Parts: sequence; C-alpha cells; structure tokens
Amino acid sequence: MVQDSLSIIFSERPTGDIVPGKTFTQERKPAPTEADLKDGEILVRNMYLSIDPAMRGWMNDRRSYAPPLKIGAVMRGGTIARVLASKSSQAQPGDNIVTYSGWQEFAILSEGQFTPASALPKTDHLPDYLSILGLTGLTAHHGMLNIGEPKAGELVVVSGAAGAVGSIAGQLAKLKGAKVIGIVGSEDKAKWIKEDLGFDVALNYKDTDYADKFKEATKDLIDVYFDNVGGETLELALGQAKPFARFVACGSISNYNNPNPRGPKNYFNVVTMRIKLQGFIVTDHAPEFPKMREELAGWLNEGKLKRKETIIKKELEEAENVLASIYKGANTGKLLMEIKNPQEVPKL
Amino acid sequence: MVQDSLSIIFSERPTGDIVPGKTFTQERKPAPTEADLKDGEILVRNMYLSIDPAMRGWMNDRRSYAPPLKIGAVMRGGTIARVLASKSSQAQPGDNIVTYSGWQEFAILSEGQFTPASALPKTDHLPDYLSILGLTGLTAHHGMLNIGEPKAGELVVVSGAAGAVGSIAGQLAKLKGAKVIGIVGSEDKAKWIKEDLGFDVALNYKDTDYADKFKEATKDLIDVYFDNVGGETLELALGQAKPFARFVACGSISNYNNPNPRGPKNYFNVVTMRIKLQGFIVTDHAPEFPKMREELAGWLNEGKLKRKETIIKKELEEAENVLASIYKGANTGKLLMEIKNPQEVPKL
Repeated sequence: MVQDSLSIIFSERPTGDIVPGKTFTQERKPAPTEADLKDGEILVRNMYLSIDPAMRGWMNDRRSYAPPLKIGAVMRGGTIARVLASKSSQAQPGDNIVTYSGWQEFAILSEGQFTPASALPKTDHLPDYLSILGLTGLTAHHGMLNIGEPKAGELVVVSGAAGAVGSIAGQLAKLKGAKVIGIVGSEDKAKWIKEDLGFDVALNYKDTDYADKFKEATKDLIDVYFDNVGGETLELALGQAKPFARFVACGSISNYNNPNPRGPKNYFNVVTMRIKLQGFIVTDHAPEFPKMREELAGWLNEGKLKRKETIIKKELEEAENVLASIYKGANTGKLLMEIKNPQEVPKL
Repeated sequence: MVQDSLSIIFSERPTGDIVPGKTFTQERKPAPTEADLKDGEILVRNMYLSIDPAMRGWMNDRRSYAPPLKIGAVMRGGTIARVLASKSSQAQPGDNIVTYSGWQEFAILSEGQFTPASALPKTDHLPDYLSILGLTGLTAHHGMLNIGEPKAGELVVVSGAAGAVGSIAGQLAKLKGAKVIGIVGSEDKAKWIKEDLGFDVALNYKDTDYADKFKEATKDLIDVYFDNVGGETLELALGQAKPFARFVACGSISNYNNPNPRGPKNYFNVVTMRIKLQGFIVTDHAPEFPKMREELAGWLNEGKLKRKETIIKKELEEAENVLASIYKGANTGKLLMEIKNPQEVPKL
C-alpha cells in the first residue's frame, strides 16, 4: 500500500491574525520512499514541529532576515525528525536529527539540510533539540549574554518571560547575578517563573494597574531590557531605562498580527538615556553555536537552567491552530507540536 | 551710573511650541561689577548665545540627561563671553571664554564654570567655539565616527543635514569615503550641502514625492543613519536599512514640540535588519574632547571641513523668538544669537 504524506501549504498571506482554513491548505501526495533516495540523501519522518512567534513575520511579503514565505510552498519550520532510510554517511536509520524541513510528514533531505545526531549534544529529552538546545536556547544565550551583558547586581527586565526564549534569557541573567523581573500574561506563568525558575519578581501585564506595578518594581531603573513583545511594555521599559541601558531587541509578539503596529511614543528616551538598542537574529551567529550549545547543555545538566515545553500532540492538520494559539499566550515555555500519526490510532 | 543686566527667565513650561511672552519673562537687575568678585572668579559679558534644538527638551519636567529647567531660573545655554574683570589666574580682561552661563547679559563665573581661552583651539572666527569647535562639532564627531563608524563605499544618510550637527556629521562621513545623502527642508539648503559641503545627494523632505525619492536614493540600502529629526525620515530609514546597519540616535527635532510624539511604526525592523541603534549625549565623552577638538580644528584648517553659521544679531529680549525659529528650520548651519548691546545704538 502506498503511504500518503500530508504537507501543510502556505496559501494566503494574512493581513492580521492567521485564518484557519485560509492561510494554509492541505496537500496529500504519495510519501517518498527509500527507492527515491540519491547518494547523500536521507528519508525522514517529522516527529516534532517547533512553533514560533516569528512564523507570523515570515508570512508578510516584506524584506526581512529570511525570504518571505512563498504562496504554494510547504510551511517553513524547524523539526525533529526520525531517519527512516539513509544514503548518507551522516545518518543511520533510527537516528533523530534536527532540520528545517517544515510542516510535512515525510521529507527527503540532503547533507547540509540537517544537523546529524552526532553533532547534537546528548539529552534524554528529545524536545530539547528545538528548545533549550536549539535556536530557542541559542537566541536567549546570544541576546542576553552577548548583547544584554548583565552584570551582578544589575536590574534586568525580560518580557515574554514565560515564553520559550524569555524563560531561558531570564535564567541566564540570574546566573550572572542580576536581579530579574519577568513580565508574563497569567498568574500561573508568574508562579512558574518565580517559584521554579528563580525570577525575583513576576508582573502580569493583564493586571489593571500593570503600569504602576512596573514603575514601582523598576524604580531603581533598568540596566538591561530583553524585549520579546514590543508595545506597551517596551514603552514602559524605555521610560524606566537607566542611563546607558542595553535593550536587546529580540521579538515583538504584541505587534506581529497587527497590520498597523505602533512604535514606542517615548522612542526619544534612546537618546536621553543613551540606550544601546540592538536587534539580532541568532542564525547570524552559527559559528558560535557549538560553544553556546555546550554551555547551555552544561548548565542544564548541573540544574542551573530549567526548561519546560508545552507539547501539543495532534495530527498535522491541526498545526495551524497550534500556531495561532501562540499569539494568545497558550504556551508556557517552548511550544512544540508532536505529530500524531493518524495510523497510530484506528479511527472510529 | 549703575548698569542694568537683563536676564531671560524660564517662566512657564510649554506643552507644545514655545510661547513668546509666556515661556520666558525678562528680569532686569543692576549688573554685577568688579567689586563683587571673590578670589578665583571672573566677571563676563555674554556675546554669543548657542541656540540649540535640545533646549526644548530641557523645558519638560521629565527625567532626562540633564535636570529639567527650573521655573524662575535664568534660561540655560552655552555662550561665548568676554572677560571684563578677573580674580582668576585662568583669565585676563579681554579674553574670550566659553561657558554655560545662560541667557543673561553679565555673569560672575568661578573656575570650572568656563573654558579659558588658553584651553580653546585657535580660530580667527569666534563663533566656531559654539559650532564646529564646540559641542556641535564634538557631537557630530562622536556620533558619526564612534557610533556610526562609516567605511569607504558605505551609504550614509544624515537627516537635518543643513543643521549645525548634521552638516558636520555628513562631511565627516565623506572624509571616511562614504557616499552621503543629506535630508534638508529647502532647495537652498539642498544646494549648500551638495555644492559647498560635497554631499552626494540632497533630498528635500517637503517635496510631495519625498518618500519615493528617499527609497530610490537608498535603493542600495543604508549602512549608517545619523538621525537628527525622528518622525517620517526615521521610518523611511528603518525601511531602507541594510542588515547590520548602525543608527546614530542624536536628535528628534520633528517631535520636540509635539506633546504626543509618534514612534516609528516599523520599529521592528531593528530586529529583522539586526540594527544597532544607539543614543548618546556628547558631554558623557568629555575626556575625549581635546583630541576630538584637535582633529576638527585640523580638518577645518586643511579645508576638509566647512562650516556656516546663521548669526542673528538682536537684543537679548529677542532670544525667545530666535529659539522658536530653529524648530521651523530658520537656520543653515549653526544658529547663534549675537547679543546686540542696546547702548551700542542710541534709541530714537
């Protein structure tokens, strides 16, 4: 019996929120097989999809750090995949590899399109490869330690602090001896970052007196602001910046679905407070990845860093809904989708 | 006969534009005399006032790089003054010194409150001490060369390019071999920066098709943006930034009189284009001033830097109107007010 392979196709650029059923469509084709492999290629089955806020940005037809998604193409995304067959010396059947093969069940990959198991640090928790030991952890590491550069005793604020990157970025600042305030969107998240991750203060941006609480908590002024959200919290942070503060511009999730995003009205504080505000994209720093990954794995093994994933196990058809949920704050820690094989469970 | 000394007093914080007759009031008191001097003090008469866009910012009751102006205090500002009498070894009667004595005809200054003539570079053009050899030139130097760091062949955009700082900043980028586009507000200014200062391109932001012209002129994308204006031009520059561009955040004159300034709506390009956007205040870098001033004086003497001042000679009462005019683009190059002594010309 020929097996089907489902791909999720990017079909229509959204102007605001992702529209389930319109932004993406489904395409079923016969799955590739071992017989299709050329020398150097591997056949894989995707197991986990990385679900990232940045995906919304890829949908805009606008010059950015990566080419805009093409209409009609398989949705782009990082995955953990199981090798089913290999004509490459870099992989054996049964290996787990990390790749950017996107939202499809099966894929054929060439060398250079995947990170082989031998190049990945050891972990007994596979999702780590897309979270703390993947681009998520590397983003937090580069942004906080190379741009933010928190020092002992400094005041650090992290927005999106219960998210994939923010939860690690804040812990890295704690490792350097800073006082760390995390901004989150629920009481459960506040509890998690304080009690489990060791943040000094957690503030809920949905509180009615959030702005007052923010000002009170930052009355000694902010040395480092790690921004994942933009919007109101960025303005509050600009207002409470200490002279010579470092602002790590990582993300702006509050604006991604907004066709008319707002800039910070107190932008000029960049001048009056002599702020260094720096944007970055972690993939520019690939040569540093092995060293950074080793550090992250070390801290993880020593118990100095903790991580959590929100893993949604669903059939691939549901990926669009899982992605849409990230902009509503559905996840604590890294959001992953585990692809449920429809053949695993007989349908009624 | 006891001589009067006129002081201009900051009397009311404006919410938008400066309001002549309300923002400032006049105070006449007997002028200090030589008999009032203590050891180490000097008596001066102010000759030139530096008129700067930043002055509007000082009027807000808001945390900034300098304390807000106090209601009832003499208006703050840099001046060139003539020494009338001295009990300091640092100055002789007849010396020209540079100080921050503010908007008053006469003042008594202690050592440390003025830069003595011996510490100033030689020039046969006194206004240079408030323009190219003063904080203006130092601001352009630090911002362009230490933050912007233009390299040969790079594309540099300077807004406020016919202003005091912008006109020098653009020339410094030319000295480093960059291609320099200047943004100005009139055809005369465009002609000046191209024909006299050697800018490669001049664009007038008042042109109806300014945005299109900006995009066309920067189609190779911007390496360095030196921002004096904020507003629309900052947004255009963010839109045309090359990956890893440096944005020198120096001023935001389009917003100073606006009680509801707007932030750049494409702020997120800081991330996608990995921009380093850095604010600065030149007085933080005082230890570097002697070296920077020497370089500026050298380039000036070699004819590699040109400068122009708009010098308004009026009685001190008129200073508020001269200041108000800077926000309407009245000046080409540095705006100075030369204080006309009412006793010079007999009144009718």
